[in-house]
Amino acid sequence: MEKNVEVSLLLDFYGELLKPSCKQAVDLYYNEDLSLSEIADQMGITRQGVRDNIKRSEVQLFEFEEKLGLLKRFVHLEKGLDNIANLSRQIIEISDDKDIKLLADSIELLAGSLKE
Amino acid sequence: MEKNVEVSLLLDFYGELLKPSCKQAVDLYYNEDLSLSEIADQMGITRQGVRDNIKRSEVQLFEFEEKLGLLKRFVHLEKGLDNIANLSRQIIEISDDKDIKLLADSIELLAGSLKE
Repeated sequence: MEKNVEVSLLLDFYGELLKPSCKQAVDLYYNEDLSLSEIADQMGITRQGVRDNIKRSEVQLFEFEEKLGLLKRFVHLEKGLDNIANLSRQIIEISDDKDIKLLADSIELLAGSLKE
Repeated sequence: MEKNVEVSLLLDFYGELLKPSCKQAVDLYYNEDLSLSEIADQMGITRQGVRDNIKRSEVQLFEFEEKLGLLKRFVHLEKGLDNIANLSRQIIEISDDKDIKLLADSIELLAGSLKE
């Protein structure tokens, strides 16, 4: 996984465990793609301060993942639900029975909704 | 959910974020069903110290859940996977087609494995 994407996902999972100002800095940098100087202006702190906050937050986010493994679980789960959706589409394709198609359709919908 | 069960599940999710001695005390109390005095003996601290550690840890565990909501997500996910398993069993029951039965069987197995 690309590092930018990974930090952004880790922020989704663990952002609430960071100090609000750190969460904000990481969000502006990784999700809003602002430069360190722009974030410094917006938050009223120095560019170096922003850099330190982001570095420290990254270390914390990877430590949370090391301890709780949410992102790993999420990726595993997402793959499994994709497989389930895939299998149910195969049933829909090969079956002639309306009831079976409906049941398989419900499974596909459910698998999709559980990914959200 | 019964409080004992809830604390035990929260410990599964967030235990690694507690101090090791706190994690141990909560585990001995809620999972191993030891008394405060027994835990105090085993850990070489006072009974009051054990009580304080457990109380503080409980507050922290509920705060982690307030912030990250893992237990809530897990319960929701578990229900969804049970529903998927249920639907696939219905397909197995009403279908006469070997291939469809096999596909539905794979879905049921996958749903079960994702709960672990």
